[in-house]
Amino acid sequence: MEVTRDDISSWLKHLQNSICEQLEYLDGTATFLEENWTREEGGGGRSRIIKNGSVFEKGGVMFSAVHGDAPQFLFQEKAHSIIEKQHEKPQFFATGVSIVIHPQNPWVPIIHMNIRYFEMSGGVKWLGGGIDLTPHYIDATDAQFFHQALKTVCDAAHPSYYNRFKKWADDYFYSLHRKETRGIGGIFFDRLNDGDLSFNQNLNFWKHVGETFAPTYTHLVNKSKHKPFTAQHKQWQLLRRGRYVEFNLVYDKGTKFGLETNGRVESILMSLPALASWEYNYQAEEGSAEQHTLNGLKKGIDWVAGKG
Amino acid sequence: MEVTRDDISSWLKHLQNSICEQLEYLDGTATFLEENWTREEGGGGRSRIIKNGSVFEKGGVMFSAVHGDAPQFLFQEKAHSIIEKQHEKPQFFATGVSIVIHPQNPWVPIIHMNIRYFEMSGGVKWLGGGIDLTPHYIDATDAQFFHQALKTVCDAAHPSYYNRFKKWADDYFYSLHRKETRGIGGIFFDRLNDGDLSFNQNLNFWKHVGETFAPTYTHLVNKSKHKPFTAQHKQWQLLRRGRYVEFNLVYDKGTKFGLETNGRVESILMSLPALASWEYNYQAEEGSAEQHTLNGLKKGIDWVAGKG
Repeated sequence: MEVTRDDISSWLKHLQNSICEQLEYLDGTATFLEENWTREEGGGGRSRIIKNGSVFEKGGVMFSAVHGDAPQFLFQEKAHSIIEKQHEKPQFFATGVSIVIHPQNPWVPIIHMNIRYFEMSGGVKWLGGGIDLTPHYIDATDAQFFHQALKTVCDAAHPSYYNRFKKWADDYFYSLHRKETRGIGGIFFDRLNDGDLSFNQNLNFWKHVGETFAPTYTHLVNKSKHKPFTAQHKQWQLLRRGRYVEFNLVYDKGTKFGLETNGRVESILMSLPALASWEYNYQAEEGSAEQHTLNGLKKGIDWVAGKG
Repeated sequence: MEVTRDDISSWLKHLQNSICEQLEYLDGTATFLEENWTREEGGGGRSRIIKNGSVFEKGGVMFSAVHGDAPQFLFQEKAHSIIEKQHEKPQFFATGVSIVIHPQNPWVPIIHMNIRYFEMSGGVKWLGGGIDLTPHYIDATDAQFFHQALKTVCDAAHPSYYNRFKKWADDYFYSLHRKETRGIGGIFFDRLNDGDLSFNQNLNFWKHVGETFAPTYTHLVNKSKHKPFTAQHKQWQLLRRGRYVEFNLVYDKGTKFGLETNGRVESILMSLPALASWEYNYQAEEGSAEQHTLNGLKKGIDWVAGKG
C-alpha cells in the first residue's frame, strides 16, 4: 500500500505530541503552549513553544504541512526536467517537524532536529532531515554518545548513510566567517529518494531519525541539568548563542528560504534564543574549557571514535 | 589643489579622535580601547571600542583604510566600462569611519553612522554614508530634532539631498520579513559624485555629516541618560536589539559584503549588542508605549514636520 502525504503528516503530528510530552516530563515545570496557524496560500501548522522552564529556557517543536503553487526557484535540477513536460502550474506539498531547544544550564547542549517531506507535481518525493548538537562546552563522552546514537540509526538503514550524512552536517552547519562549525554536528540529508533503498525503506530510516531525538536528548539533559555553573559559564553560553544566531541568520538555508518566501516569521525565528551576547574580540584563555570547545568546532572529527 | 586619498583618510582619523573624545566625556567613566590591525592584502584600521560604561553598554568607532586588487564584483556599472579599457589589474582604495553605539538606558536610542570614500582605477571616486537612529522608544520631539539636524546639513549642500537621502535610508534600513524599519531612519547615500555639485562640494557635505554626529547624539543622550526605567523597559530594549541583530545579519550590505569578502569579522560585527533577546510571538499591548513605537517603524514618515 502506498504511503500518502496525509499518512506522513499525520505521523509527524504524533511525533510532535510524543516529543513534547517527553520534553515536558524532562523539564518538570514548564508546559508547551500551542498555537495553530493557517497559511493563506494553503495549509498551516501547529506550533508548540516552551519557555522559562526549570530545564528549558526557550524551545519550539513545530509541525507544519503547507501546499500550493510551487515557487519559481523550485524549478530546477531534477524537478525542473519533470515539471517542464507538464501544462498545469506545478504544485508543491511540504510537511515537517522542526525543533530547537535552548536549555537554561550551560552544561546542557542546544539541540536541533528537522525532518521534512516534500512533494511536487510530476512525482517528485523527497525526504530530508537531520539532528545536530551544539554543546556550549564540548564533552567527548557526550559527543561520542550522540554520534553513536545517530550512527546506529543510520547503520540500520544503509552502511554508507552515517559517513555521508555526518559529513553533510559538518559542511552544512559551518560558519564561514567564524571558520568554525556551529557545534559538533550530527547528520544532515536532503532530497533523499534514490540509491539502494526503496522510498519506504528511506521513509523508515527518516522516521527512526525522528524517533531517536527524544531518548538521545533525554540522556544528555539528565546527565547535566543539575550540574552547577558560574556566571562565567553562563556568559560563555550567551556568547555561543550569539554564534548560533549568526549561523541561523547568515547561513541556515531553512531560515533564509522562509524569510525570503514570506514564511511565518515567528515559526522560522523560534530557533533564536531568549538571550544572546556579543563581545568584541573575545579571546578564550589558553588551556581553558572554552578554548577546548573552540578546538572541537571543526569539520571531520571522528566523534564516535572519541577523537574529539 | 586636489584632495588626495591620504587627505581624506587623515581627516577621518581626526574625526574618529574627536568623536571618541566626545563620547568618553558623555559617558563619564568608560574609555575607548584601541586596537590597530593590518590587512594582509593592503591597508588596515584603527578600532576603538567602549564597553560597560555608565551610559554606553557597547559601542565602536572604527576607522579603516584598505586597498588592493579590486574584487570581481566591483566590475560593474559605471566602473566596469572605465576599467575594461585598461590593462593592469584594477585597484581599489576604501576608507571610512563606522560607528554603532548601544546605550545602557532604554530611553537613549541606538545610533549608527558610517561615512566612506571609495576609489578605483580609472578615476572612480565615490562618497557614501549616512546616519540613522534606532530609538527603543520613539519620542516625536527627539525624532524631529534628529531629522532636523540632518536636514540642516543636507539643505546647506543641495535642496534635494534631504528628501532623496531620507527616502534612501527608509528603504535601506527596512527589515522585509518584519515589515518594519530598523528605527526612525535618517539619511543614507552611496556613490555620490555627480549631479549639480563638484566633488569638493560633495566632500564638504560628507564631512558635515560626519561632524554632525557628535553634537546631535550628545543632545539625545543627555536628554535621557538619567531617565528611570523598569525591567519591562529593559526587556523591550533587548527585544529591539534582537531586531537590530536580525537587520544587520540578514540585510545590511556592509555586513554581508564584509563577511563574504573575508573582512575583519570583529570589526564588522562590533555593531551587535552585548545582550539581545528574542521572544516567540511577542505582542505589544494596545495603547502601550511599545505599540506606539511599532506604529512609528514605517517608511515615509515626515519626522521633521512632527508627524511621527
